[in-house]
Amino acid sequence: MPDETLFILNRPSTDAPAHDPDGAPFALADVALPHLSVMDLAATRGDGVFETLSVFGGCPQAMDHHLARFARSAAMLELPAPDLDAYRAAILAAAAELDPAQEAFVKIVLSRGVEGSGVPTGWAYGELSPDHTAARTRGISVAVLDRGYRCDVSETSPWLLAGAKTLSYAINKASMREAARRGADDVVYLSSDGILLEGPTSTLIFKRGNRLITPDPALGILDGTTQANLFRFAERQGMTTTFGRSPLEALRKADAAWLVSSVRLVAPIRELDGETFPVDSELTAAMNGYLLDLRE
Amino acid sequence: MPDETLFILNRPSTDAPAHDPDGAPFALADVALPHLSVMDLAATRGDGVFETLSVFGGCPQAMDHHLARFARSAAMLELPAPDLDAYRAAILAAAAELDPAQEAFVKIVLSRGVEGSGVPTGWAYGELSPDHTAARTRGISVAVLDRGYRCDVSETSPWLLAGAKTLSYAINKASMREAARRGADDVVYLSSDGILLEGPTSTLIFKRGNRLITPDPALGILDGTTQANLFRFAERQGMTTTFGRSPLEALRKADAAWLVSSVRLVAPIRELDGETFPVDSELTAAMNGYLLDLRE
Repeated sequence: MPDETLFILNRPSTDAPAHDPDGAPFALADVALPHLSVMDLAATRGDGVFETLSVFGGCPQAMDHHLARFARSAAMLELPAPDLDAYRAAILAAAAELDPAQEAFVKIVLSRGVEGSGVPTGWAYGELSPDHTAARTRGISVAVLDRGYRCDVSETSPWLLAGAKTLSYAINKASMREAARRGADDVVYLSSDGILLEGPTSTLIFKRGNRLITPDPALGILDGTTQANLFRFAERQGMTTTFGRSPLEALRKADAAWLVSSVRLVAPIRELDGETFPVDSELTAAMNGYLLDLRE
Repeated sequence: MPDETLFILNRPSTDAPAHDPDGAPFALADVALPHLSVMDLAATRGDGVFETLSVFGGCPQAMDHHLARFARSAAMLELPAPDLDAYRAAILAAAAELDPAQEAFVKIVLSRGVEGSGVPTGWAYGELSPDHTAARTRGISVAVLDRGYRCDVSETSPWLLAGAKTLSYAINKASMREAARRGADDVVYLSSDGILLEGPTSTLIFKRGNRLITPDPALGILDGTTQANLFRFAERQGMTTTFGRSPLEALRKADAAWLVSSVRLVAPIRELDGETFPVDSELTAAMNGYLLDLRE
């Protein structure tokens, strides 16, 4: 079985024309070949949206949640609405190409397409996942960085697209480089008015006593698919869960904290801005075990 | 002659490997064909930089300024340094393919390339320009929008890439859609602390008496290539020129104002947030005439 696979959607949105009126909904493509025009707005303007789903035992996880968020991001960018049935089928097709004995992921993309064409571009790319055991068990070192925006920009200034998962991720990549420069593995963003937000590609969860707290998506951040699963798990364990609006100090005082995401899963924070941070190894292992066993 | 043309760079940076060790520095490519991998970081992360140069009478304008800014943007993203000689040659080759009797532009791009490859992607795309006569003479209606960032973020938080011309332009596109929703043609951004910045794809200049004022690039905005030419022109006409840090009120009280950019050139603001704004038709025509006659 291949290490990676690619399916190109013929008609990513039923609101827009197909690339080939007589073509199949999606088709297996050769990853080694070029498939995008240099005029595709994905490449020239980061003008599109994406989702990344984990695949465990051949099963794409949290499909409904990811697809709903994908559609919401697209709406925020006023893209043609993605055909979720077509994307769902393409995700399943990509997942089926990869070794079910290994962890994998599928990334789906919708771009506005070639400038002026009115025909969006869509694809589903699948790949075996790197080994994230170290991050899941030993944990990660995290730097706190300013995200530049106030925590109310999604209400005051929706054109800043806070909370949309867009292809314009240069800042997220630059933030990860800044973290590396500080000797850290990852980032927690703080709003310009000092409120905890999220990581560049993850959701923050922290624990105080018997309570798990995550920053409220109303703060202009993504609603986490992995976080949602973990809150269900925690509630079944008798813990309480809260969406909060918390200053950095709340994280500093937490009993434990994690950056959680679809592919790396639950990475405990073991160092925050160079200071040792408490790790709850037992709960971390239980959360990762729960996610790895899920078959939704 | 074609309406558009494309040259792909074989080795966009001398700090990184060539795509084809035996290949020519750049080669004419068929615009109708795909040339980018879906794994190119231009398309998946908006992780690259660009410049757009105008071409008048077959001559690319302000090449040195654009190439210097291109290199500066690349450095801000820690991309491999672009080979400016190769890009210069590709720009000239693209310009030479297009009808010199018509206005045209060439866009150059450098992306980090396919994820994990370490081989950057580069191209130069040329096209005949749309007719911007109406914007240059009758002027444009402009909406003032919050850019979300304080005006000092380029100093406090360089990972936000303020002042880099990146491929992550989804916000700029969303801002233009918000302007259209308000019945406006374009946008002037204001920092979250109320300082005039720039347009999504242009530089702001306004006039007070005998003085032209433009927001200081130290505010985390691009240093304008067209603005620089216009300041040289204005100084020769006996006007004074200033880089400023001005509140919106300064623009409201101006005698005239323009959004200036390489391809559309000088567009006088005739309406600001729905209010009529004074247009200096004579000076506007002189500035556009000066730029159109430049052969640098």
